[in-house]
Amino acid sequence: MKVACILGPGFEDSEFKQPYDALRDAGHEVTIVGLEAGQKLDGSKGNETATTDLAVADATPEDFDALLIPGGSSPDKLRAHDAPVAFVKAFFDQGKPVLAICHGPQLFLTAGTHRDHRLTAWKTIQVDLKLAGAKVVDEEVCVDRNLVTSRQPQDIPAFIRESLKLLEQVPARR
Amino acid sequence: MKVACILGPGFEDSEFKQPYDALRDAGHEVTIVGLEAGQKLDGSKGNETATTDLAVADATPEDFDALLIPGGSSPDKLRAHDAPVAFVKAFFDQGKPVLAICHGPQLFLTAGTHRDHRLTAWKTIQVDLKLAGAKVVDEEVCVDRNLVTSRQPQDIPAFIRESLKLLEQVPARR
Repeated sequence: MKVACILGPGFEDSEFKQPYDALRDAGHEVTIVGLEAGQKLDGSKGNETATTDLAVADATPEDFDALLIPGGSSPDKLRAHDAPVAFVKAFFDQGKPVLAICHGPQLFLTAGTHRDHRLTAWKTIQVDLKLAGAKVVDEEVCVDRNLVTSRQPQDIPAFIRESLKLLEQVPARR
Repeated sequence: MKVACILGPGFEDSEFKQPYDALRDAGHEVTIVGLEAGQKLDGSKGNETATTDLAVADATPEDFDALLIPGGSSPDKLRAHDAPVAFVKAFFDQGKPVLAICHGPQLFLTAGTHRDHRLTAWKTIQVDLKLAGAKVVDEEVCVDRNLVTSRQPQDIPAFIRESLKLLEQVPARR
């Protein structure tokens, strides 16, 4: 499967690196999509760096089977721009798997896609989601149809397990 | 006037330093309140550092006349803990001046004080506030009774001007 990983400045190190590695180890192709192509990004904890493969303005959601959204400051930085918000919305509109952890669901609030699925998020974002009318649970991982969400770094094993399971179940893009 | 400045990791450098300096230059006493006392904090842009004077768990809202909330990652880091949220709520409950810029109003969402005043915030937080039922404007500064809010570093001169004006108007604590 072709997976887009949308990433911006200040991503949470382990929430990017561990799912990214696990998806690739399982045979999926992961493309890092950012505000610009070739942008070097540092994790907020200084443990990981990443370089974007593709600018979101040049990325076509139809070219991907699924979307991965790591947490940290990255989702809030991305949602200040129109292109990443439209990119995220397209995966929901097309019913494709979306895998989001921690602050990732901040992008759903801006995209207006937060009310269609049961979901979880980092505890501060759970409040914003509830106030916006979303169906929020406080569990290590929440799977609702095409959406997998988790709260924090400690939840990464469950997040990876359910993400890989979902990707096995859905048909790949022709 | 005695002003509490609530500050956490990753504060936006200029949104802390410029209002902090302006309030002190105008003769106000500013106490930096954080998660711990004596905590050294770095600004997100690496231009400023600050050391907290007092732990929020030991701070008494009744000892202060007004509250300053700089932006950056600081408000979201703070609102993951109960004590800063209760501290912020107390200033609203007591009708004291609250001066918040950028991501500052994230604390209002968690404190449940976002619906009582017209306000502005950083553009991504404007979305969260609107979805939560707040009366949001997109202006460089918004003054509604005891609340002064601004959106971003470019708005700092207007934020400082209206904050100082409000502090001149309200009576000091006994």
